[in-house]
Amino acid sequence: MSRTVEIVLSPLLLPLVDLKGKTVVVIDILRATSTICAILDNGAKAVVPVVSVEDALTYTSDDYLVAGERNGEKAKGFDFGNSPTEYSHSVIQNKQVVLTTTNGTKCIHASLAADEILVGSFFNLDVITYYLRNSENSIVLFCSGWKDRVNLEDTLFAGYVANNLRDTHSWDSDEVELAIDLVKQSQPDPASFLKKASHAQRFERLGNHGDLSVCMQFNAHPVVVQYNEGKLLSI
Amino acid sequence: MSRTVEIVLSPLLLPLVDLKGKTVVVIDILRATSTICAILDNGAKAVVPVVSVEDALTYTSDDYLVAGERNGEKAKGFDFGNSPTEYSHSVIQNKQVVLTTTNGTKCIHASLAADEILVGSFFNLDVITYYLRNSENSIVLFCSGWKDRVNLEDTLFAGYVANNLRDTHSWDSDEVELAIDLVKQSQPDPASFLKKASHAQRFERLGNHGDLSVCMQFNAHPVVVQYNEGKLLSI
Repeated sequence: MSRTVEIVLSPLLLPLVDLKGKTVVVIDILRATSTICAILDNGAKAVVPVVSVEDALTYTSDDYLVAGERNGEKAKGFDFGNSPTEYSHSVIQNKQVVLTTTNGTKCIHASLAADEILVGSFFNLDVITYYLRNSENSIVLFCSGWKDRVNLEDTLFAGYVANNLRDTHSWDSDEVELAIDLVKQSQPDPASFLKKASHAQRFERLGNHGDLSVCMQFNAHPVVVQYNEGKLLSI
Repeated sequence: MSRTVEIVLSPLLLPLVDLKGKTVVVIDILRATSTICAILDNGAKAVVPVVSVEDALTYTSDDYLVAGERNGEKAKGFDFGNSPTEYSHSVIQNKQVVLTTTNGTKCIHASLAADEILVGSFFNLDVITYYLRNSENSIVLFCSGWKDRVNLEDTLFAGYVANNLRDTHSWDSDEVELAIDLVKQSQPDPASFLKKASHAQRFERLGNHGDLSVCMQFNAHPVVVQYNEGKLLSI
């Protein structure tokens, strides 16, 4: 049977898609899924995604670092926020990082009906493409958005992945066409293109203005990240 | 206070928007809102949008024509389907047309919390733009989509309207940026561009292949259509 690719542009649109037997790629470019790729590529053993700040703070052993944000800022009592630049090798080697974010970790938990959950960002675009092309599953690219709104950066990334799956997967989906059109429109400089994104502008206001260009570094952290029994691991 | 413009890409995303005090433009290019503009421009007194086929069939007086579709085909027992080409002046002059469609009429009923509901299509792009620029209200462009999925043709039209409101309205919305990018990507021939839309392809399969190019005739039916006490009227 032929493999398909679909795109979910917002968590509110997830009910339109049947996840059974499929591979879901959760996308939250600014910044959860970018940060997860950076953490695992920089030597952490695992990332434990949790939904609430309270849940995160129950991980008190020295094996764990606790990290995450609410509304784009570091949550109170946490070791780290949600910027991929905070996690150097020396700090996180062999640690497990407990992470909660506004959008991204919620989407991982919303995807549990799928056969497999992966994490995608520009940091791991080529390796995740390679992995998906060689998997037998149909694919759902799940954009986290911002508080359930559709956003440019996640849609753009979904467009890149779908475009890369053109030879192996098919679609009957205007969402996929829309996302691939966005890729075309973003050339030749997708990072500059994204500066008009509302989320990027929100970042600017919060003083995180470096993170947009960091998160647009294609293939900077080439890890395939899979969710397995409550943890995200580099496989 | 400055006026804003927002875009709702699917009925499932409507809860993210506060309609109070705003003007909603309901958009269902293929074909409900296109057909409504054609009907009113061709001389009908009013269009009565109803949600169900059963409701439509209760209008039995000779003053009414009953029209609509389910899944893109004419519903059983109806005088007309949902194609703008069916409604010539001689047939509908001074009649009221009771219309039910898969997506469009539902969205009108979902927008009742707004201050004002209008109907938009490429048929009335310029007059509706003129009207909105001169209104004091903030605007919500509400795309009907196809069975709650985001579609290209409604998003493209929303992009045209938003782009036309650039000098009078502001936005902080990636949905608006996305729709305006789609307008750019669709140049120089938006009708050809839309042929890849899943809905257009569905039309092709149903033998309605002429309707896409008909519905892309810019300003062919220049009427401002407003919902008022259960009826859609040309104002």
